[in-house]
Amino acid sequence: MRTIKLTLEYDGTDFVGWQVQPNGRSVQQVVEQALERMLKERTPVVGAGRTDAGVHAAGQVATLRTEKAVPLKAFVMGLNSLLPQDVAVLDAEEMPEGFHARHSASGKRYEYRISNRPTRSPLLRRTHWEIYRPLDVAAMRAAAVHLLGEHDFSAFRAADCPAKTTRRVLRRFDVEEEGEREILITVEATAFLKHMVRNLVGTLAEVGLGRRDPESLPALLASGDRTQAGPTAPPQGLTMAKVFYDPR
Amino acid sequence: MRTIKLTLEYDGTDFVGWQVQPNGRSVQQVVEQALERMLKERTPVVGAGRTDAGVHAAGQVATLRTEKAVPLKAFVMGLNSLLPQDVAVLDAEEMPEGFHARHSASGKRYEYRISNRPTRSPLLRRTHWEIYRPLDVAAMRAAAVHLLGEHDFSAFRAADCPAKTTRRVLRRFDVEEEGEREILITVEATAFLKHMVRNLVGTLAEVGLGRRDPESLPALLASGDRTQAGPTAPPQGLTMAKVFYDPR
Repeated sequence: MRTIKLTLEYDGTDFVGWQVQPNGRSVQQVVEQALERMLKERTPVVGAGRTDAGVHAAGQVATLRTEKAVPLKAFVMGLNSLLPQDVAVLDAEEMPEGFHARHSASGKRYEYRISNRPTRSPLLRRTHWEIYRPLDVAAMRAAAVHLLGEHDFSAFRAADCPAKTTRRVLRRFDVEEEGEREILITVEATAFLKHMVRNLVGTLAEVGLGRRDPESLPALLASGDRTQAGPTAPPQGLTMAKVFYDPR
Repeated sequence: MRTIKLTLEYDGTDFVGWQVQPNGRSVQQVVEQALERMLKERTPVVGAGRTDAGVHAAGQVATLRTEKAVPLKAFVMGLNSLLPQDVAVLDAEEMPEGFHARHSASGKRYEYRISNRPTRSPLLRRTHWEIYRPLDVAAMRAAAVHLLGEHDFSAFRAADCPAKTTRRVLRRFDVEEEGEREILITVEATAFLKHMVRNLVGTLAEVGLGRRDPESLPALLASGDRTQAGPTAPPQGLTMAKVFYDPR
């Protein structure tokens, strides 16, 4: 049995998310449909992480198992010719038996983009959260530093988050100004709780708008109380950028 | 009579172009419809330049004339609430009588974006020309230098270009690598012939693919023969970035 690792990019705008759902078009579903057409048999894929409706990916990873002797190149060129325009396979690799997109992952990187101009931006609307009032990026950066490291992130998880443990290691949380009034937030952790990145960004945005002091972040973290944190930032600003695997 | 200068951004994907056309949705038409709703009278706008179907703008300029005593702010906030999501007014200014978006312009800047990865990019497909084979950016840059300055650009104009004169001054033609295998081409001139930027880019792409020598550009320019130049690059990579006006 072969184990194939696919690296995928997708524009999440017109998807209900990664995960197959009874109603609506999911990324997993269109990938499985393309695989079934190519391999002539039903072939489930497992994703490294679920992305919500509207969330993009530049480096989602999915694994599949097959007995078919199809060359690796076909998993890139062949699948790309069968997939819709808003999903593409960037790379395919043969992995050792037992490799699993989610269980084998040692970390993930997400990117969150904000457009901080006084007016709407038609060219950024599908990939950025548009915040019209000016953000204090230095304050956002100061707040982010308080969250780096290992903490209980209960204050930043969705009410219906199924995770059993809530301690996570945030190893990167950068806030950078880019181009003309755009902000790029990069978050890396060993693993994430449900909606954790969007809740972190929603809280940083409140800091940037002067509604919350950067120095209040340690107490918020200690409270473990989701109702004390900021709103969930909208999905279109979020991109799953990279999944890390330890070399074996 | 007041003369108002609007600066506009739009995502050209779902437009037939700037110019009103009998069939299809144009940017000029949706702007005039929003103006008519706000000012309660038909108010034509004149654009600094026509953009083709699929071409974007980050700084198109349009002028209108009105007797209405509407505050400038309403031309930004008010119009933005009436315009569709793929068009926005970035700025509105009161100009002296006689100012004209096209006739008063002293130059324009266009940007052209290429994605140069071996596979499709769902996240760049609406804003980039996707060229899968690796481009030699140094060769493209060497070719671009030969076109700088004042020349007869007949070899780079569309067959149906209506311009009476074909000499133009190219004052900037930069080819830069950006991010992960993306190329940004910036072109600035006093004025452009029809399809000139896309024909210049199509020719540079042939140089980048090794099909044309950078040193052959002077002879191509001298030939004045459109059939000797490269193909017209696709519209989605092009953005009208800025229109220049001399301070009076």
